[in-house]
Amino acid sequence: MGKNRLEAFSDGVLAIIITIMVLEMKVPHGDSLDDLRAVVPVFLSYVLSFVYIGIYWNNHHHMLHTVSRVSAGILWANLHLLFWLSLFPFVTGWMGENHFAALPSALYGAVLLLASIAYWLLERAIIADQGTDSLLARAIGRDIKGTLSPVLYAMAIPLAFVASWLAQGIYVVVALMWLVPDRRIERALGREAD
Amino acid sequence: MGKNRLEAFSDGVLAIIITIMVLEMKVPHGDSLDDLRAVVPVFLSYVLSFVYIGIYWNNHHHMLHTVSRVSAGILWANLHLLFWLSLFPFVTGWMGENHFAALPSALYGAVLLLASIAYWLLERAIIADQGTDSLLARAIGRDIKGTLSPVLYAMAIPLAFVASWLAQGIYVVVALMWLVPDRRIERALGREAD
Amino acid sequence: MGKNRLEAFSDGVLAIIITIMVLEMKVPHGDSLDDLRAVVPVFLSYVLSFVYIGIYWNNHHHMLHTVSRVSAGILWANLHLLFWLSLFPFVTGWMGENHFAALPSALYGAVLLLASIAYWLLERAIIADQGTDSLLARAIGRDIKGTLSPVLYAMAIPLAFVASWLAQGIYVVVALMWLVPDRRIERALGREAD
Amino acid sequence: MGKNRLEAFSDGVLAIIITIMVLEMKVPHGDSLDDLRAVVPVFLSYVLSFVYIGIYWNNHHHMLHTVSRVSAGILWANLHLLFWLSLFPFVTGWMGENHFAALPSALYGAVLLLASIAYWLLERAIIADQGTDSLLARAIGRDIKGTLSPVLYAMAIPLAFVASWLAQGIYVVVALMWLVPDRRIERALGREAD
Repeated sequence: MGKNRLEAFSDGVLAIIITIMVLEMKVPHGDSLDDLRAVVPVFLSYVLSFVYIGIYWNNHHHMLHTVSRVSAGILWANLHLLFWLSLFPFVTGWMGENHFAALPSALYGAVLLLASIAYWLLERAIIADQGTDSLLARAIGRDIKGTLSPVLYAMAIPLAFVASWLAQGIYVVVALMWLVPDRRIERALGREAD
Repeated sequence: MGKNRLEAFSDGVLAIIITIMVLEMKVPHGDSLDDLRAVVPVFLSYVLSFVYIGIYWNNHHHMLHTVSRVSAGILWANLHLLFWLSLFPFVTGWMGENHFAALPSALYGAVLLLASIAYWLLERAIIADQGTDSLLARAIGRDIKGTLSPVLYAMAIPLAFVASWLAQGIYVVVALMWLVPDRRIERALGREAD
Repeated sequence: MGKNRLEAFSDGVLAIIITIMVLEMKVPHGDSLDDLRAVVPVFLSYVLSFVYIGIYWNNHHHMLHTVSRVSAGILWANLHLLFWLSLFPFVTGWMGENHFAALPSALYGAVLLLASIAYWLLERAIIADQGTDSLLARAIGRDIKGTLSPVLYAMAIPLAFVASWLAQGIYVVVALMWLVPDRRIERALGREAD
Repeated sequence: MGKNRLEAFSDGVLAIIITIMVLEMKVPHGDSLDDLRAVVPVFLSYVLSFVYIGIYWNNHHHMLHTVSRVSAGILWANLHLLFWLSLFPFVTGWMGENHFAALPSALYGAVLLLASIAYWLLERAIIADQGTDSLLARAIGRDIKGTLSPVLYAMAIPLAFVASWLAQGIYVVVALMWLVPDRRIERALGREAD
């Protein structure tokens, strides 16, 4: 089975997630600055989630570059990842509407944590299918960012109940950490070509 | 007529269905644990429907692998299947919001039943176009899962009025039964290649 | 400029239109048969619109088969068609929620009329680009269905104010008329191949 | 990294934006002409935004024609553009629902301004990657429309508070200015071919 339809389906789901999140930013009825100000927290949570979905799309894109055939395990690991990402509009809206309160911020972190675990499982499913000597396995090597992120999310969840801005801070820092694209796979592909 | 645009359109519709279902999980206004708990039934029905759409996408993907040209019959049988699947967001939301009450659970089963019949009709339309000696016809053979599923859904509909959890149990069992991917087509393709 | 991205974009928009229409079928709060019955008119209007979007997708698919390059005129004629089709969720929801009342039924017909004119303009744009001796021009010939449909829609609009079911009847009859796929283009392509 | 998935993802996001905007046009509960008249301002803002997204899709399409490989810079510049475009449904709905009041009209202009800057940044990212001697760089030359548009949007924002129709007028004029497709790239591609 080829990977084109898997990529197309994943792209479709990610494109829809990133776009319908904006529907959680309800159009205010009044036209004053105060009406607009009420939307600001939802807007900020939207920006954060937009960046996260962008990062996932980007890394997903890179990771699938190394895949040539899609096994049933890869297919379901991919759907599992999409499931957690599909919860972004809900947790984004909930966190924004409640002005980054403790519980919604913790739940946001929980979805980030589960999505990062799902991403790791997809990575494992690909390597399991292609062998530990595969391009992806060598490209990833010691995956510092991939290991650090879930640890940081797991820390943020309890911290949200101490002070919500601590959790937010961690989410922003991890996003910035990933904004630098993963050049390991590109580099490994480059070495392959030589 | 090629099948690429049929696949792309179906993928698009399935990607949208799987994603907009999450919009039925309304963001609660409060930020307490009780507010979140109120969303749990809709979340559970969302998980079930996500798995079902995933299964349909997966099997649809496999089935179209065997198709080379798209007749008008195949095209409309495919749209007919997409129609019943497009009702998933509605029945999922209704069942979840009413905490798996009898009538919404029965309607959920009815949509599952009609979708499975539509899938079977699409299978027939493809075989009718390609001949009973075709790859798909041989791959399917005696389609135990495909025959058993509608029977189980048809049983679940009246059972929902006896005890709603009986219907839910059947929906979960059928989903688990299908989670094992259909290796018959892959195997038949493998034999073809030899 | 190639036509692939035009097709992909059109498919995307049509897939979204056909799917978000279901969001106008609001999940009822109660779980009784009466609650469900209240949704029936919106469901019926949804079925009608689903079939219409399916027909447009199907015919659009056939028509673009004959196009090799996309001019600016074709591109904007295509967007113009998508614009009128994008109003389907609105008019479908309005007609359904008001139980096929006169004005919503007339507006539904107006959107059908404008979409059919837009389709005809797209056909002209393609023929203008490819010459009246082109495959599409010959395939269409005397376009009976394409000429009859707007006339019938235009009749249905005033008739909706006489008796709403007359307009509905016309919409159903025209849809059935189009459900038979347009074999002219397939036939012309077949002749070309000979 | 190829550009196909970037195009497909962008097309998906633009197709969703252009389609979900219609969801901001809430179906009225009554069936009278007055109920419909209340929707007219949202409809007009929808038409304007539909044309703008169409223009962006068209020009994006042309611009990516000149790209062969996608760098991380291009990828994020593209996501940045999609971010501002994703705010169209919100500002369109807000401006329409408030009958083109001053503040919503100014915010609409601000999103137009930021989107046009993001488009310019994407152009720079592509040229930076391909060299100032590249096809795109030569095709654009002195980019009069691209330079004039942000200036006009920036003028429209304060003017919205003087008289809202002045801002609206500017948005319409700029849209008309862009409706004429950008033939510079096509011409440069033509010269290349010679």
